[in-house]
Amino acid sequence: MSSTFGQLFRVHTFGESHGGGVGAIIDGCPPRIPLSESDIQIDLDRRKPGQSEIVTPRAEEDRCEILSGVFGGVTLGTPIAVVVRNKDARPEAYTEMAEKYRPSHADFTYDAKYGLRNWQGGGRASARETIGRVAAAAVAKKVLVAQFAPSLEIVAYVKSIQGIEAAVDPDRVTFDQVESNIVRTADPNAVEPMIDLIKAMRSEGNSVGGVVECVIRGVPAGLGEPVFDKLEAELAKGMLSLPATKGFEIGSGFAGTRLTGREHNDAFYMDGERVRTRTNRSGGIQGGISNGEPIVFRVAFKPTATIMTAQETVSATGEDTQLTGRGRHDPCVLPRAVPMVEAMAALVLCDHALRQRAQCGGNGG
Amino acid sequence: MSSTFGQLFRVHTFGESHGGGVGAIIDGCPPRIPLSESDIQIDLDRRKPGQSEIVTPRAEEDRCEILSGVFGGVTLGTPIAVVVRNKDARPEAYTEMAEKYRPSHADFTYDAKYGLRNWQGGGRASARETIGRVAAAAVAKKVLVAQFAPSLEIVAYVKSIQGIEAAVDPDRVTFDQVESNIVRTADPNAVEPMIDLIKAMRSEGNSVGGVVECVIRGVPAGLGEPVFDKLEAELAKGMLSLPATKGFEIGSGFAGTRLTGREHNDAFYMDGERVRTRTNRSGGIQGGISNGEPIVFRVAFKPTATIMTAQETVSATGEDTQLTGRGRHDPCVLPRAVPMVEAMAALVLCDHALRQRAQCGGNGG
Amino acid sequence: MSSTFGQLFRVHTFGESHGGGVGAIIDGCPPRIPLSESDIQIDLDRRKPGQSEIVTPRAEEDRCEILSGVFGGVTLGTPIAVVVRNKDARPEAYTEMAEKYRPSHADFTYDAKYGLRNWQGGGRASARETIGRVAAAAVAKKVLVAQFAPSLEIVAYVKSIQGIEAAVDPDRVTFDQVESNIVRTADPNAVEPMIDLIKAMRSEGNSVGGVVECVIRGVPAGLGEPVFDKLEAELAKGMLSLPATKGFEIGSGFAGTRLTGREHNDAFYMDGERVRTRTNRSGGIQGGISNGEPIVFRVAFKPTATIMTAQETVSATGEDTQLTGRGRHDPCVLPRAVPMVEAMAALVLCDHALRQRAQCGGNGG
Amino acid sequence: MSSTFGQLFRVHTFGESHGGGVGAIIDGCPPRIPLSESDIQIDLDRRKPGQSEIVTPRAEEDRCEILSGVFGGVTLGTPIAVVVRNKDARPEAYTEMAEKYRPSHADFTYDAKYGLRNWQGGGRASARETIGRVAAAAVAKKVLVAQFAPSLEIVAYVKSIQGIEAAVDPDRVTFDQVESNIVRTADPNAVEPMIDLIKAMRSEGNSVGGVVECVIRGVPAGLGEPVFDKLEAELAKGMLSLPATKGFEIGSGFAGTRLTGREHNDAFYMDGERVRTRTNRSGGIQGGISNGEPIVFRVAFKPTATIMTAQETVSATGEDTQLTGRGRHDPCVLPRAVPMVEAMAALVLCDHALRQRAQCGGNGG
Repeated sequence: MSSTFGQLFRVHTFGESHGGGVGAIIDGCPPRIPLSESDIQIDLDRRKPGQSEIVTPRAEEDRCEILSGVFGGVTLGTPIAVVVRNKDARPEAYTEMAEKYRPSHADFTYDAKYGLRNWQGGGRASARETIGRVAAAAVAKKVLVAQFAPSLEIVAYVKSIQGIEAAVDPDRVTFDQVESNIVRTADPNAVEPMIDLIKAMRSEGNSVGGVVECVIRGVPAGLGEPVFDKLEAELAKGMLSLPATKGFEIGSGFAGTRLTGREHNDAFYMDGERVRTRTNRSGGIQGGISNGEPIVFRVAFKPTATIMTAQETVSATGEDTQLTGRGRHDPCVLPRAVPMVEAMAALVLCDHALRQRAQCGGNGG
Repeated sequence: MSSTFGQLFRVHTFGESHGGGVGAIIDGCPPRIPLSESDIQIDLDRRKPGQSEIVTPRAEEDRCEILSGVFGGVTLGTPIAVVVRNKDARPEAYTEMAEKYRPSHADFTYDAKYGLRNWQGGGRASARETIGRVAAAAVAKKVLVAQFAPSLEIVAYVKSIQGIEAAVDPDRVTFDQVESNIVRTADPNAVEPMIDLIKAMRSEGNSVGGVVECVIRGVPAGLGEPVFDKLEAELAKGMLSLPATKGFEIGSGFAGTRLTGREHNDAFYMDGERVRTRTNRSGGIQGGISNGEPIVFRVAFKPTATIMTAQETVSATGEDTQLTGRGRHDPCVLPRAVPMVEAMAALVLCDHALRQRAQCGGNGG
Repeated sequence: MSSTFGQLFRVHTFGESHGGGVGAIIDGCPPRIPLSESDIQIDLDRRKPGQSEIVTPRAEEDRCEILSGVFGGVTLGTPIAVVVRNKDARPEAYTEMAEKYRPSHADFTYDAKYGLRNWQGGGRASARETIGRVAAAAVAKKVLVAQFAPSLEIVAYVKSIQGIEAAVDPDRVTFDQVESNIVRTADPNAVEPMIDLIKAMRSEGNSVGGVVECVIRGVPAGLGEPVFDKLEAELAKGMLSLPATKGFEIGSGFAGTRLTGREHNDAFYMDGERVRTRTNRSGGIQGGISNGEPIVFRVAFKPTATIMTAQETVSATGEDTQLTGRGRHDPCVLPRAVPMVEAMAALVLCDHALRQRAQCGGNGG
Repeated sequence: MSSTFGQLFRVHTFGESHGGGVGAIIDGCPPRIPLSESDIQIDLDRRKPGQSEIVTPRAEEDRCEILSGVFGGVTLGTPIAVVVRNKDARPEAYTEMAEKYRPSHADFTYDAKYGLRNWQGGGRASARETIGRVAAAAVAKKVLVAQFAPSLEIVAYVKSIQGIEAAVDPDRVTFDQVESNIVRTADPNAVEPMIDLIKAMRSEGNSVGGVVECVIRGVPAGLGEPVFDKLEAELAKGMLSLPATKGFEIGSGFAGTRLTGREHNDAFYMDGERVRTRTNRSGGIQGGISNGEPIVFRVAFKPTATIMTAQETVSATGEDTQLTGRGRHDPCVLPRAVPMVEAMAALVLCDHALRQRAQCGGNGG
């Protein structure tokens, strides 16, 4: 379905990085949820360019406008259209890309698929496309808290940048800790080294990647479906649909393959009335369905493809050539990826909360 | 959509591990593709229990029957229904599980979701459910080779079991190498150690996990879609929908986050008429769309949850208790996971091949 | 989606009239609904051939088997697979059709679409395909009554056959009245004339059509969605997807175009706490959403295409020729169409009941 | 899916009659189709209010803006977002409707479903919502002509208003004939009587309905699918999703139920290389699949619900009361319904053309 995400809480996004604007239609949203443009703007501001000295300097306010689906300050149950205009497009920086394919970008593959592409910026492959996702997720979170998970917390943070690892306890990390620093990690000792590394990379015209970890607390048991739409499968899809991602793991992840079953299994015990597990190697999901423990997963982001040094490449007409990066780019996508990861998590959860209510009644838990 | 996979090449699966049978309806298959039950049986035999001394001894022939959609030896274009009867079900081994939740299984979460479960075996959470996927993928592969990718090779293999790593070159590994040994790895030096480890685990009543790597050669450029249905996102979903999976990575994966952009980018060059890349850290996909290079990814499988030692758990009525595993199980799911990984890869590719033909015409490439 | 109906209560059907069998997977069904094969068999028996002297004599028991999704007498929430074997197939009656296109049948169009067809019987175009629908609808009705519409009544009946019109009051007609006669009308005065007409047609080797009317009482207000998935739009699609249908109208229908707005509008009034309408020209649906009044609609069925006289046609190789009908057929599809119409109505309602619960919470009403 | 139409050529609409604006995202459109705002504007102008003396005087220019998906004058293959601003909203005319339900409108049912509604105008139930459909259909027609049906003609026209019937030959009627008069019929003798009737109704504060007939010539054989997504079923759904519709019939329709099979069947014959039918009671579709003959269907539109006389109704708080229509409305929706019917036909055909190409290859025909 290409630009649609979700079965019941459905987001349809549109827009290229250079063009009239970007945005989303959010369909299937429950009615009577309080919603205003400022609810959405908060998250868009966390995603927007130019927010700090370590991200791209493109100057976009990213002001959103709600065109439909809200009346008297609450949702109507009908499609919510959100639009953000592109203001600071500078297509002239991309003239050379009309002819040459940027290495490890989507230029060649878009041409291979469609026979053309919008070479002014990255088109749909630009991270600018995630504006629609983040806007929709702001709505999703309001639905989840209002109707399904009153104590929901979705907290993503930079777990590592290149070799610098942050020590973070997923059971305790808070949103405020993450937002207290521009790199969006939650280990005070890692903040400065990470910032320094990013700055060093930018000054060299190079780039760097890393890992975002995300914890979701307060999810009721019972979300997710057997077989294909397992909750972790949907999360994996959501995360791997973000630009620049190369991997996803949940709970014990790849490291868990080093343990035996005896070491790996999460023993159940009763905590008052509630079934809980002593450990959480399952990452909050068993058999594709949430078990009420915190959901914990990690996403790998590669180093930004655009670098400011000459690279070997080919032209659209089939000749070997060279290309040096231009335009305004993030030397490291991680700080801005944090709200994107949270957004995809919120969309997956909200969709499955509605699916669970549809099939099994009740509001989860 | 729960038990449906794919937008155009659509697979609807059904069946519990204990019950009348399992199978799938395959809808949207192109007409006039030669197909017989033996085409499907080949892959089912690679998946079936009892195939070697290191897998579960459950005695199932897993004979498939095609009920519809094939006439005169070719597909009709109408739904292909495939059924496999359950023969060697032994529900009596599960009586205790009616009352107690197996740690790191889906027993508790199914109850939390549905308010009941089929406790005779794992129900839909059993690996037996993958029969429908493997059957459908046998059809998908025939479609791909006939109409989209004549030189297609999908080769999965065991990359590691616990700490034992196989040295395999994804560019050269062959199906025959993998099928030459019961553990389904492709490094002759790893075969015996892996088999010994699995046997040791079984004799201890313990279990072990590992990593399956998969390479797909001969994929035309242009498959996959921007934004949500990126080819790697769909592969990630497909793989994480398999039982016991904890992680997915493509190309450079998590290790790629340790490199700089300068080290990581895949330089383009002309190989005759064809655009190729010098390295393949992208894993064959850029911007969500195949670039014609081999697609390479890895999937983490946890150690089997059922172990033959007493474990702490709780009862369905909310009391702390203990449970010792019974029934017939794989001490290591990896050897039988290999055809499952290939199956999900084939389903994703076939679906996207049809999607590409729908929107852009032609047969890819 | 071809052989799939419904967004949340999803039915996937399979099977040709001549082949291994027909059936359906029902996915998305709520858990804990009591269900057995006999619940389904009741409706299959109303649909089956050979049930009376005015329908096709093909001798099929149409015994259904549930392969999955039911445990301990209740639904599990996982896919319910239902299979009915074909027993009395007689492909030899169709040999001539391998070469020639039956007029007003699907022979030519299947060839035009797929480049081949199963010429033994009508393949997927056979009314035998509706077995899967009727089976699924038996489940849908149980869900509706258990969770959404305890006093639900779906009553279809033959409203006319050729020129013979039955006088039936949709507000009072009962299921028992309809089932009391083999033609399935509800006007005692019309029974004999209709039966006589059908017999006369059969003896001439001719056929006849008519109109089925359906009333649904006890539907809560609020089902159906704005814009594309209006409840009447979904009913129209469901009905026009039945074999041999040529028209659908709801409430005042085509005759309503003869009235002015002043005559046509349904005045609201309070009936105790309940909002009701004095007239029901809306047919129980306003703006695409049920208003709590009886839903009333009509479906036109053409005369059976297979007739036992020589007709002009062409061969698959492009020559003008003649063809005389053979095989076993209904001289009038109406009596057996009654349960099919009810089935599609039940599927639409159940799907929309789940959709309403998903988005708006509660169980309707 | 509520505000989404189509499986492959997908239209997502948004917007209320009073609010920021209305529009659509068109996803799945083939790349490299020439497209500009003026291509879309032509059809929007045929739909817009204020276009003649017999339609609503609401003064909307309905100027469209394309925000994405088009570059260098051609489609990119990525989502095309089209927005039309609401300019002449006059919510003050609706104050009374905040409290009272308009008879035969969607006011009550929206409240029953969602627990609230946008009472300023009809919200999503307004015919203004069809702007997104008409815009999308303009694109669909370009795709069809460019890739699937070069000689395609979709011509709808007013077949009757109340008792005034137009004599039109579907095989010969032209777009220009229809557009030559403001009532959009194609029988010169019916134009004046129809206009006079509409004017008379408006001067009385009353309203009137009628029937739109549509013929589609130049459709390749092979479009449409067996079982649920029959081409006529999809057309029926599309048409019944339009505001104010009460019925749909194809080919012989309800009148066809008066014929015997011998009279009704369409004999095949060879017309050179092409298989054709002597008559067209099938309406161009057999077994759910187009046969290459003109597709002919009719749609019943009820008289406009808003009339300027006092009517019995109830208040939102449950009291019997009266309401007199206000605001600006069409005394007869038929002239503006003509482009809406064509639009839904184009959307259905384009979707099925892509579906056919996906499954069977080639471009139809």
